[in-house]
Amino acid sequence: MAYELYYWPGIQGRGEFVRLALEEAGVDYVDVGRQQGAEALMRMWDGPGIDTPSFAPPFLKHGKRIIGQTANILAYLGERHGLVPKSEAARLWTQQIQLTVADLVTEAHDVHHPLGGDFYYEDQKPEAKRRAKVFREVRIPRYLEWFETILTRNPKTDKHLVGARLSYADLSLFQVVAGLRYAFPKAMARVQPEYERVIGVHDSVAARARIKAYLASNRRIAFNEDGIFRHYPELDG
Amino acid sequence: MAYELYYWPGIQGRGEFVRLALEEAGVDYVDVGRQQGAEALMRMWDGPGIDTPSFAPPFLKHGKRIIGQTANILAYLGERHGLVPKSEAARLWTQQIQLTVADLVTEAHDVHHPLGGDFYYEDQKPEAKRRAKVFREVRIPRYLEWFETILTRNPKTDKHLVGARLSYADLSLFQVVAGLRYAFPKAMARVQPEYERVIGVHDSVAARARIKAYLASNRRIAFNEDGIFRHYPELDG
Repeated sequence: MAYELYYWPGIQGRGEFVRLALEEAGVDYVDVGRQQGAEALMRMWDGPGIDTPSFAPPFLKHGKRIIGQTANILAYLGERHGLVPKSEAARLWTQQIQLTVADLVTEAHDVHHPLGGDFYYEDQKPEAKRRAKVFREVRIPRYLEWFETILTRNPKTDKHLVGARLSYADLSLFQVVAGLRYAFPKAMARVQPEYERVIGVHDSVAARARIKAYLASNRRIAFNEDGIFRHYPELDG
Repeated sequence: MAYELYYWPGIQGRGEFVRLALEEAGVDYVDVGRQQGAEALMRMWDGPGIDTPSFAPPFLKHGKRIIGQTANILAYLGERHGLVPKSEAARLWTQQIQLTVADLVTEAHDVHHPLGGDFYYEDQKPEAKRRAKVFREVRIPRYLEWFETILTRNPKTDKHLVGARLSYADLSLFQVVAGLRYAFPKAMARVQPEYERVIGVHDSVAARARIKAYLASNRRIAFNEDGIFRHYPELDG
């Protein structure tokens, strides 16, 4: 039974973390918004017969199940497709890392929308500039330092965030590094030499056969200025 | 073996969601920051021997385990103390609701800190005012409407968010309503009559024996202007 991913058709956004897991798992899935249009997404989002409607996309349909919230979807896929270790302690730790990625993603979005998503970027540019400076100089290094630290402390290897093998947390760290490099190329060029293990995870994920094929395919939407990681040169530096 | 909660001593904050679950479960716990001071929190936060350091408090120590991220902690406690149904589908749904509560909590914080936590509120008051208006008029109703909808659609009862009995999601919805009422008394007085099932959950949680005793005790820190839900009259209306 194919998975159905429901997410906005034009952006990577939070849906991309799910796409990466589905691609690495090598399972059949329908990217409903892209393949059937935004109306198909809207119909399933809040159809009156749905007991568990999500507050926002992405959500995943698998048979009768509809599961929302990115980290929750990844926990579900991870257990089914070997993208998380089996022990409870390791599953909790992987999820904790993913939830911290989610916090970083929210901050990366709020850099260009500090007053919230109900105003256009053009209506909050001076505010975005103030927030971006702190994000570049304080928040990005703080998050990357944390990822570097937990890689260093992983008793099994410094090539993966959890245990000895790939987990969905590694896929998500790849996406975060790719997104930060797209949005803040100058800032990232300056800070990333400090975090060689983080960059190592990025590079090794990008080189995996299925991920490499995915990134080269037209299933991978390009980064753009409607998504979470946006390149506005005035916010980089 | 007593649980140890590590969180800032002076605020409810995100730690309060964990405190409510520990109190309802009726288990022994040490609120380390409050009982032993912030230094004890800092020592455990990033001691060099810790393989799974959290990015930020709260985190919970249980024997050798250290678990961070509020929703993750609640999933752990919920399974152990009957605060979540046993089926996988119900556990995922409860966690999805909790992660949506977490999104609301982040927005409630960002109302008074739209430019981020590295500037004082006093340095971002005009921006906070703009964001607060949208939060009161658009975001609060959108979240409360969603909670009301899922209560209405719960096939078992409209008195609980998941299944027929109390879950940690109900405890968290209580906390959110209490916090919004504290921070935005005028806005909440205006909108809350629309959401009677949401208010019903708040009231029934507040009336539970253990929660009632907790709220009346000095273990419950009062809401204040260092926490997430802050009452600044200029942001209400």
